[in-house]
Amino acid sequence: MSLEYFFHPQSVAIVGASQTSGKVGYEIVKNIRQGDYAGKVFPVNPKADRIADYPCFADLASIGEVPELVIIVVPAKVVLKIMEQCGALGVKAVVVITAGFKEVGPEGKELEDRLVQIARKHNIRVIGPNCLGVMVPAHQLNASFGGELPLPGGIGYISQSGALLAAILDIAKAGDIGFSSLWSIGNKADIDELDIIRALGEDSNTTVIAGYLESINDGNAFVRETEQISHRKPILLMKSGGTSAGSKAASSHTGSLAGGETVYESAFERAGVIRCDSIKTQFDFAQAFAYQPLPPGDRVAVVTNAGGPGIMSADAIERAGLTFAELSEPTRAKLAEQLPAAANIENPIDVLGDALEDRYAYAMDVVMDDPNVDIVLVLLTPQAMTRANETAQAMADILAKRKDKPVLACFLGADFVVDSLEILRRNRIPFYDSPEAAVRTIRAMADYVRWRNRPQRVVKLFPVNRHRVERVIDRHLRRGLREVGEMESKEILEAYGFVTPQGEIATTAEQAANIADQLDYPVVMKIWSPDIVHKSDVGGVRVGIHSRREVMDAFDLMMYRIPKKMPEADILGVLVQEMCRSGQEVILGMNRDAQFGPLMMFGMGGIFVEVLKDVAFHLAPLTADEARRMLMATRTYKMLQGVRGQEGVDIDVIAEALQRLSQLVTEFPAIQEMDINPFMVGPPGTTPIAVDARISVEKPKNP
Amino acid sequence: MSLEYFFHPQSVAIVGASQTSGKVGYEIVKNIRQGDYAGKVFPVNPKADRIADYPCFADLASIGEVPELVIIVVPAKVVLKIMEQCGALGVKAVVVITAGFKEVGPEGKELEDRLVQIARKHNIRVIGPNCLGVMVPAHQLNASFGGELPLPGGIGYISQSGALLAAILDIAKAGDIGFSSLWSIGNKADIDELDIIRALGEDSNTTVIAGYLESINDGNAFVRETEQISHRKPILLMKSGGTSAGSKAASSHTGSLAGGETVYESAFERAGVIRCDSIKTQFDFAQAFAYQPLPPGDRVAVVTNAGGPGIMSADAIERAGLTFAELSEPTRAKLAEQLPAAANIENPIDVLGDALEDRYAYAMDVVMDDPNVDIVLVLLTPQAMTRANETAQAMADILAKRKDKPVLACFLGADFVVDSLEILRRNRIPFYDSPEAAVRTIRAMADYVRWRNRPQRVVKLFPVNRHRVERVIDRHLRRGLREVGEMESKEILEAYGFVTPQGEIATTAEQAANIADQLDYPVVMKIWSPDIVHKSDVGGVRVGIHSRREVMDAFDLMMYRIPKKMPEADILGVLVQEMCRSGQEVILGMNRDAQFGPLMMFGMGGIFVEVLKDVAFHLAPLTADEARRMLMATRTYKMLQGVRGQEGVDIDVIAEALQRLSQLVTEFPAIQEMDINPFMVGPPGTTPIAVDARISVEKPKNP
Repeated sequence: MSLEYFFHPQSVAIVGASQTSGKVGYEIVKNIRQGDYAGKVFPVNPKADRIADYPCFADLASIGEVPELVIIVVPAKVVLKIMEQCGALGVKAVVVITAGFKEVGPEGKELEDRLVQIARKHNIRVIGPNCLGVMVPAHQLNASFGGELPLPGGIGYISQSGALLAAILDIAKAGDIGFSSLWSIGNKADIDELDIIRALGEDSNTTVIAGYLESINDGNAFVRETEQISHRKPILLMKSGGTSAGSKAASSHTGSLAGGETVYESAFERAGVIRCDSIKTQFDFAQAFAYQPLPPGDRVAVVTNAGGPGIMSADAIERAGLTFAELSEPTRAKLAEQLPAAANIENPIDVLGDALEDRYAYAMDVVMDDPNVDIVLVLLTPQAMTRANETAQAMADILAKRKDKPVLACFLGADFVVDSLEILRRNRIPFYDSPEAAVRTIRAMADYVRWRNRPQRVVKLFPVNRHRVERVIDRHLRRGLREVGEMESKEILEAYGFVTPQGEIATTAEQAANIADQLDYPVVMKIWSPDIVHKSDVGGVRVGIHSRREVMDAFDLMMYRIPKKMPEADILGVLVQEMCRSGQEVILGMNRDAQFGPLMMFGMGGIFVEVLKDVAFHLAPLTADEARRMLMATRTYKMLQGVRGQEGVDIDVIAEALQRLSQLVTEFPAIQEMDINPFMVGPPGTTPIAVDARISVEKPKNP
Repeated sequence: MSLEYFFHPQSVAIVGASQTSGKVGYEIVKNIRQGDYAGKVFPVNPKADRIADYPCFADLASIGEVPELVIIVVPAKVVLKIMEQCGALGVKAVVVITAGFKEVGPEGKELEDRLVQIARKHNIRVIGPNCLGVMVPAHQLNASFGGELPLPGGIGYISQSGALLAAILDIAKAGDIGFSSLWSIGNKADIDELDIIRALGEDSNTTVIAGYLESINDGNAFVRETEQISHRKPILLMKSGGTSAGSKAASSHTGSLAGGETVYESAFERAGVIRCDSIKTQFDFAQAFAYQPLPPGDRVAVVTNAGGPGIMSADAIERAGLTFAELSEPTRAKLAEQLPAAANIENPIDVLGDALEDRYAYAMDVVMDDPNVDIVLVLLTPQAMTRANETAQAMADILAKRKDKPVLACFLGADFVVDSLEILRRNRIPFYDSPEAAVRTIRAMADYVRWRNRPQRVVKLFPVNRHRVERVIDRHLRRGLREVGEMESKEILEAYGFVTPQGEIATTAEQAANIADQLDYPVVMKIWSPDIVHKSDVGGVRVGIHSRREVMDAFDLMMYRIPKKMPEADILGVLVQEMCRSGQEVILGMNRDAQFGPLMMFGMGGIFVEVLKDVAFHLAPLTADEARRMLMATRTYKMLQGVRGQEGVDIDVIAEALQRLSQLVTEFPAIQEMDINPFMVGPPGTTPIAVDARISVEKPKNP
């Protein structure tokens, strides 16, 4: 069901409306009134006649028609009764402002569950409980106690914190920032962040979706759907509670499960969601996304009337990993034509301290023409001759004629520039209080463009033997075994196209030597027992065995020594395996996140992962491109390409292995954790070997 | 000579004063007038009677007394003449506002050099040329054309960019930020940044030194002196032009040599200078340093009336590497005593959305008492019941009584909080527009405290054989040789207490084998020729030679093959050397920076330095603590401590080697670059070996 009734209801009833100024039940009616809402308004209060000019009703039933939207402000213990009345009447959209539900403990949780049951029974969609309400400036609807309705504009805003929304509204008002709608989603008992994002994605008044979230209800659906929506509209989110301190604070605050930083980063990256770390940054970004075209690339040119800020911008651009544009020869010639001799006609283009608006306009226009420039940042510093207002107007005049590339402004100062900022704002030229803030915004735009231009996501499906894996896993689940043994792990890997070391189990020294002869030396020997997990600890692993004689010795020594150390262990024999000598050790892994599903991991093996924690993550399922980018995201990527005269390893082979693993863990939700460590990979043309693996299984919660 | 006449001259003459409004020569006189300067003012202009109420003089001589400060605004070509007049009169302090010197090219540079000559001849100290002038609010002196005099306050400000200073003044005015004095230093022909920093260090009105620099004139002196001053007063600097894009912009802008990012970072770290990346950050930091006590440690407690911003602060604190304070049991008990049951009495302390000022005051006071808390951050979000003004006042009342720990504020919103920010400002409570900005500031304070509390810098001097090194270097310098050969590098290393591999040069195969026998196998063999630099390329290096027979074969093969490849090379024999097999390879290095002197480098050897660029830098001379911290600053430090069951290496031995190298390059300024690579180090108790070294020498510029 769509959320249409929340966006533009023809009629609104407020149950719990009050005559007493300062009470929430009064503030909401007053806000609806002051917002000049055009629909019908029905305050419901059996003890009042009129509230804020609207005639009052004793109850919902006595209104005489079905209100399209009902706002509930009655005490928590009465909410369920009102919900039932809504259901009986056929109301389809309700905002429960009232607090005292999940956030206060088990009793409140119980109340909230019953609220949801009633809603489901009657097909009612509910915002809240425990929220500020909804504001839709585009329809002059202020169904909230969040204060005045802000200006209409292109930003659709969702907040999981009512208090933060109040601060945002106050800041937006001071900065004349406009919104299509604002949603305080409170406890998200029914309608959650994804419902709203989906609706904002469809809403024609919304050009940028922004929000503050502390938790995400359904991680998988969130990623799947926001990925589609991000293609049409940028989604800018603050997500708090990611660090361990923050998540502790979050869980004591809302009782919700805050996900780890890594998985959120992977999820946002996958979905193209742009993460913001403060309200200021979010508004900085939103301005640019709402009002400027997307840049074709990341090459930034700077036009300035002072050297210092120009240098600071150049520093910031390089630090942000953007490209400091190199102007083309014709551009430089054209700049030289009209600018004074002392002007700098290289990037940053310095139009000099005595520049009036004409020089700015000329330089800006010429630089925008340069095919080597994707974005223009215009800096202005107050100097004796500077005309900030006229310069702002000149910029606006150019952008009225051409919108081919984004232009951002940074006018330094305060009183000197305050009027010019108003001109920029009116003309939808985003402006920033420092070159750094502008550059951060440019980086966000460039990242978003790169994301939108990434290759289409095609997840390759490899031909595999699912049935074989199913058998192994089912057997484990039936027996309640969590860890999959070595031989069976091998079976799973082979079913999905991995090559594992050749080897067989021997029960006598003679047999071990025969196996080794066939495998070719050197070999590895491992004690074989379901009861021995840490084989090395009991002397149960020997590597680099070079002869038949040594194999026999090793076999007999294990058989003699290990039972002494672990008399109760059931020893089935000794595994004799070929030894992987050459190539690079890497690790392929997966951790299943409760919210977002399988999170794939790649890292360089051995000491690199231990010392450097040099690993990259990505949500499954992986495309070939994503798998390759995981490799490139590690600091040790160069080692895979070959260093110090060593030949590089086969990168495509690792990428394919990651995709196969991704397919395996996607197809088998029972696999909770899995590592292939080491995965030995050599130069192109050689066969990589999955030397060892660790797999844990568990009955999936949502099969 | 002190800069006293610039700080509070009894009389000021303005040469080039003008009657025409808008001209610099008029603006300066007007600014002096409007600033209510109490001393005598002498405009000098032969064609005018009075300027801005002051009687005019035809020239300096006709004033009839010696002005303590002279401001020169005449055209560039007349400046030298005026300087001579100043000299003849006995003027000691001059500000040259006039532009058209070094910044316009070689001709201007020549003019500037002559200006300096005149100044030196007459013992005149000069600010400028090409600057905005000087402002000293503490003495109501505005000898500048930078606009109105700002409020008096504790910040002493230096700017190498006049335009940026204008922006800073405009921003400071809007924010009521006060200054002790502001210095536009222009081309720094005579007085440079260090002169001003030194003077501000002595100035009793200055509590915080801040500035914007594009270059530093004398790096060594800068580090040495700011290190002393930083102990008394924090120094907050923006330094631009550090990245390659920025430095290109800087050099095309000022013609000055902008130093690399690394060396500036090392210099600032050593000197305790706090680096700021924008005007906003600088003011954010300056507020806290100027008005709050330093925190005893880095444990931050947060008091908030809303969960969301509390979580965001917790995230920011953890990301910044600060400690999120754990409240003590008594504190929690005391909070529980008076706060509502729903309040969070753990950090972040949530006094709830309906909190009035009393709850804030109570929580703040209790938290400040907690011995586990070093800093308190107070967040306020506008909600229905919130009283921002009263809360600000309550905070001020507490801080009027106790100043034991710093308190920072972040009141989110705009109109709702604007008056309360004024109250905070009046009461010197620093406030921030986001939790992130507040946390960044806390991090700067904590870093500064850590720097101030670092162990006293004692550079150990090892007993060495300087004479031996002197001989080798002198020989190279005399012959114009830049690269020191292997045998002589060894000599230098040994003179400074390094152990190098044992070895001797053999001229026959028989002799080579005898040397190898004495060294013990395996050995390394290297062709010995002054003409062969890249020995490996011609097959001139063999490692891992295990027997007498192999030594003789290798010798003869080199003698047979290498002359064929390099017929003109003078071959002196073959070096037979012991082979260092075990231990960890590290690199010790030094690069002499033109401005800051020897920059020491430490890195993990081999693949780590090549792939990961995992190196740490520090300016010489090194203390033991600094050397140890260089090791710890690398990501691979853990490898030195031992991983994967491998024994760790002797860390103190590496630290000592770094100190010895630091002593060597400090005592011999002729050494331009030097690497010991690899330096092989084993477990404690073993002797580390400097296996190979590369040393370049050059006649030092300032011997």
